Amino acid sequence: MNKIITISREFGSGGRELGRCLAEALGFAYYDQEIITGIAEKSGLAEEYVNSIVEKRPFTYYPITNAQTLTAAYTPQFDFNVKVYTEQINIIEDLASKSDCVIIGRAADYILREYKPVNMFIHADMESRLQRCRHRAPEDEQLSDSQLKAQIKAVDKNRARYYKFFTNRKWGEKENYTLCINTSTLVIKDLALPLAELLKTILDCNNDQAT
Amino acid sequence: MNKIITISREFGSGGRELGRCLAEALGFAYYDQEIITGIAEKSGLAEEYVNSIVEKRPFTYYPITNAQTLTAAYTPQFDFNVKVYTEQINIIEDLASKSDCVIIGRAADYILREYKPVNMFIHADMESRLQRCRHRAPEDEQLSDSQLKAQIKAVDKNRARYYKFFTNRKWGEKENYTLCINTSTLVIKDLALPLAELLKTILDCNNDQAT
Repeated sequence: MNKIITISREFGSGGRELGRCLAEALGFAYYDQEIITGIAEKSGLAEEYVNSIVEKRPFTYYPITNAQTLTAAYTPQFDFNVKVYTEQINIIEDLASKSDCVIIGRAADYILREYKPVNMFIHADMESRLQRCRHRAPEDEQLSDSQLKAQIKAVDKNRARYYKFFTNRKWGEKENYTLCINTSTLVIKDLALPLAELLKTILDCNNDQAT
Repeated sequence: MNKIITISREFGSGGRELGRCLAEALGFAYYDQEIITGIAEKSGLAEEYVNSIVEKRPFTYYPITNAQTLTAAYTPQFDFNVKVYTEQINIIEDLASKSDCVIIGRAADYILREYKPVNMFIHADMESRLQRCRHRAPEDEQLSDSQLKAQIKAVDKNRARYYKFFTNRKWGEKENYTLCINTSTLVIKDLALPLAELLKTILDCNNDQAT
């Protein structure tokens, strides 16, 4: 069975950068925007539209994992969301079956639970997240600190709702992850190599348990 | 400033074993029961008695960090607890000033916050904690699974209350730690060497920030 690392991350925590560095260090495939492109191709929906849906909760308050009738919650919008989620499951499972890989977000930790992946949650305090966002923002960005903070919180709220809706689990709850890393004081690129070595050991432990 | 690693841990998660292996791998001093012995010596209280107090919440419901009068909460028992906690602070600060070290539990992450320690929280699911406890128990131990589970929960409840009382923080909340490690599927001794290498990098990051 292929070795899978999933990375869930707070916005601005450096989780995506860490994922890319880890994939490079481990020689694993790296999937992030590729998942969106795949969903768009398979569903016939525009990539931008898929992007706007993924990691936002569909328009109902009941987790999809609850056994219930969805009739009351049905809207055309809801239908698109479920279609996108279904394609996402197919694509993520397809990618995982191809090779060892690092997958960013999109409830992959839950979708691929049969693979016994190493699931990581990357988080940081608000100050360092603001700094990271400023650092990577386009030069002409004019957001104030409070506007940027509101944006960060809104993205994370959507991710948490999406995750809860499709998995009925709490996003970021440490029990759901093998490693939670607080990157507030850390330099991502320095972290990648020693973390990759640690992950090799953890993946071997998981593999031993699976066999 | 010396390099400090603190390890908070759920009972049965292997945190203490991990701490010992890490200290050995890093060439750091390791402090666990030594803290209790030190408190006993300095306070004149019996070591067994100190052991029974430490990591149990004193008999009041208000966190000691709140600015308040403690008159209403005063009892001789409470007085012993505060005495023990005060000695604990002195001893932990004294140990940290001597050399690089790994310290297990006892709110050292909070007491030594000026040192910018790497704080770790080690946790695991109940099944693997039961297994670990069974493995290290004396041969004649007769506890049933449900009795052992109750014991594990009681120890952790005390640790959480003690931590809350003296720090006004939530024990085990990932935001308070640099790394949270779920050891449910992991082999502690295999983990120690690669984790020690990662910790060296993190300690360097923390040191760069502190200077």
